[in-house]
Amino acid sequence: MPHSERFDVYVNANQDKFLKEFGEFIAVPSVAAQKRGIKEMADLLTKRFRKLGAVVRQYPLPDGGSPVVYAEIGSGPRTLMIYNHYDVQPEDPLALWTTDPFTLTRQDGKLFGRGVSDDKGELLSRIQAVEAWLATRGDLPLKIKWVIEGEEEIGSVHLEDWVREQADMLGADGILWEGGGYDEAGRITMAAGCKGIAYFELRVQGPAVDMHSANAPIVTNPAWRLVQALSTLKNTQDEITIDGFNAHVRPLTPLEIQRIEALPFEAEQFKHNYGLARFLNDLDDRAALRRLYEIPTATICGLTSGYQGNGTKTVLPAVASAKLDFRLVPDLTPDLVEDLLRRHLDARGFTDVQITRLSGEKPARSPIESPLRTAAIEASLDTWNQTPVLYPWFAGSGPMYPLSVMLNIPVISAGATWHPDTRAHSPNENILERDYFTSLRFTASLIEHFSQV
Amino acid sequence: MPHSERFDVYVNANQDKFLKEFGEFIAVPSVAAQKRGIKEMADLLTKRFRKLGAVVRQYPLPDGGSPVVYAEIGSGPRTLMIYNHYDVQPEDPLALWTTDPFTLTRQDGKLFGRGVSDDKGELLSRIQAVEAWLATRGDLPLKIKWVIEGEEEIGSVHLEDWVREQADMLGADGILWEGGGYDEAGRITMAAGCKGIAYFELRVQGPAVDMHSANAPIVTNPAWRLVQALSTLKNTQDEITIDGFNAHVRPLTPLEIQRIEALPFEAEQFKHNYGLARFLNDLDDRAALRRLYEIPTATICGLTSGYQGNGTKTVLPAVASAKLDFRLVPDLTPDLVEDLLRRHLDARGFTDVQITRLSGEKPARSPIESPLRTAAIEASLDTWNQTPVLYPWFAGSGPMYPLSVMLNIPVISAGATWHPDTRAHSPNENILERDYFTSLRFTASLIEHFSQV
Repeated sequence: MPHSERFDVYVNANQDKFLKEFGEFIAVPSVAAQKRGIKEMADLLTKRFRKLGAVVRQYPLPDGGSPVVYAEIGSGPRTLMIYNHYDVQPEDPLALWTTDPFTLTRQDGKLFGRGVSDDKGELLSRIQAVEAWLATRGDLPLKIKWVIEGEEEIGSVHLEDWVREQADMLGADGILWEGGGYDEAGRITMAAGCKGIAYFELRVQGPAVDMHSANAPIVTNPAWRLVQALSTLKNTQDEITIDGFNAHVRPLTPLEIQRIEALPFEAEQFKHNYGLARFLNDLDDRAALRRLYEIPTATICGLTSGYQGNGTKTVLPAVASAKLDFRLVPDLTPDLVEDLLRRHLDARGFTDVQITRLSGEKPARSPIESPLRTAAIEASLDTWNQTPVLYPWFAGSGPMYPLSVMLNIPVISAGATWHPDTRAHSPNENILERDYFTSLRFTASLIEHFSQV
Repeated sequence: MPHSERFDVYVNANQDKFLKEFGEFIAVPSVAAQKRGIKEMADLLTKRFRKLGAVVRQYPLPDGGSPVVYAEIGSGPRTLMIYNHYDVQPEDPLALWTTDPFTLTRQDGKLFGRGVSDDKGELLSRIQAVEAWLATRGDLPLKIKWVIEGEEEIGSVHLEDWVREQADMLGADGILWEGGGYDEAGRITMAAGCKGIAYFELRVQGPAVDMHSANAPIVTNPAWRLVQALSTLKNTQDEITIDGFNAHVRPLTPLEIQRIEALPFEAEQFKHNYGLARFLNDLDDRAALRRLYEIPTATICGLTSGYQGNGTKTVLPAVASAKLDFRLVPDLTPDLVEDLLRRHLDARGFTDVQITRLSGEKPARSPIESPLRTAAIEASLDTWNQTPVLYPWFAGSGPMYPLSVMLNIPVISAGATWHPDTRAHSPNENILERDYFTSLRFTASLIEHFSQV
């Protein structure tokens, strides 16, 4: 029986055990935002790595942060770093779940529970892939360094400092990230990086309480101040007009442009799904696709002020605020954007607009070509008989910067437990049971190919 | 015993009866917005006018509107019109009331209940004043025409049409309006008119649902559209910049300016009460006072879009909307403002901003000098031994336009059951029991003086 067949037999024979372990992981409500179940989950994970035979250690973080669980196993000329996280989003609104969020539930070929998709399924199936490898194929052909974070869902607030402190320990030839999946057409997708993010609340304080609007001739209205301030950040062509902002946008390379333009893009389907008559500025499909990956954004995610009920209430509001997210491309950073934003507003007299940064992650752009990418394509062909769609980077954001950019290690998101209706961060989060085990096999195949390329 | 003394004796002897009647008025929950108790209240009022000896009739209004109760009594060279309304604001939030809103409750010298201040106290005490006059002084020295509306709290939506239809019947030499009261310094206040109002909701529809903000490069964000559109309506000096708007503002007359500048204005106290470090644009007190009465306003009363909770949510909102109220001075009207606003936005490409008018009342500016004003000053000296503060018009709004401007009859708000903590439209609405009867005596004094000037 060849190696890969023995591997499959082992996985099949251990399906129930693997799912039982998965259920134990899901049962721990490791909600970082609420500091629930964090220590318990870090300990359970540490125990699981020990059982695998890995050298494992918890790294405490300052200010009561969730510890990083770091594990090493195997040896070889190449080193593969694996990044996952053991924390999850809060489960609310609980009423919208059809199953208990912290009980792994099988139903109609799916596995339901908070974290099944984001990110405990990927996390555990990769450990189990190594177990199956060791049981059926002997020693690993490379070294694996696992960095398992417990604060991904609250913005990885301590990761950069921790990576800086532990840089000597963290050398690797490639990083297998979380995420990656398949799209509605069934195409396996991968990505080598992501945009960064800077999320701010802008707030203007007016009178101490909402006032009768008859006072408007003599009382400064914070909602007008906010509107006027915001209106200077973009023009009506939706171009960001913050002083100095665009000078920090690194141009795309010809290879990056070529890879973006080669991506599949079901423009009509997209517009149909979201009820859009046209793209912004009437962009054609080709221009829209490129712009989606190329440009940084400034998005008003929310506006709040005064009376918001039905009908009329004649008030001059006490407070006005906006939630604003910036998706960042190199070489923009959250610090830089905050500084530019403050200077821009101050220069126009908007010193009364308070800026609070709510989260920030630097952009991570990884080399388009790398041995890890080549290995991932081979493993995808093995696993799904498909050449994957390789996004140069996600239009979304994640904490890739410290490990990938600071340490200069190519990164790839691949593994495909995420599916189009996975509902990460939402009620009824789910993955397909079939995908859990396919992803496990993909990991083994990636180990094999990465050790050889 | 002189007339006025006999009048007082009668009022004192009938206090319990008068308050019992007041209790019957308060007990009917005549909430126009909910079409509750309207017919019952109109009938109770009609019965009360019959008991007084007035000729009374209910005028039904179209679309199930609350009937106007119209009554006439007395005769003489002069005609006094009295305007009040028998509908009230909804009582919610009920939990914040310390007494039952529809049970007139005496407590600590005050009378509590929905409508005691706005406007059933004024309404009934004026009827009882005429009863006491008839009982102690014989025939009335003038004709009284009572227009009692049942839709004031929902914007007097049918009043203008009704007045137009009944114009022949409604001639008068002066109108005694609702409102007027005394301020925190105990000064009796009156007003001869009010600003108008136009209240709009501006709404921009984006994608069918909130989207992931990573799509911002290619999807039009309704919150940005709204902000850009709003920002064209005012400049950062808080001047209204709607095309053609300011050309409709009628300049003040020298007499109007003189009267405004003579008004008391506790600027420091005002700023202190509302936590304001300074007035808008650092206006000095004198400029602030004049501006309060002189200029029309455009106020953002509310802003709503996307995510408004704690922390971050990275969405591109489906919808953004603003509540916008304009306080109008002559010759601005709600129709005109709506038309100017639509043209202004269209001219700048904001055809995607929907405008819905939620309410509108035209401004009412009455002659500063009039026999009614003279009589009101005399009656104020009789009643409170004070020359009242005469505001040329309220900075707020009311349905004075149809009766006062269309019919060209000088109007005055006077009567003083309103006090600084009267809480009209709010829980625990109250008046002072003392003021109820003082107001009743003021009405009699006004009748006497108005018949003589």
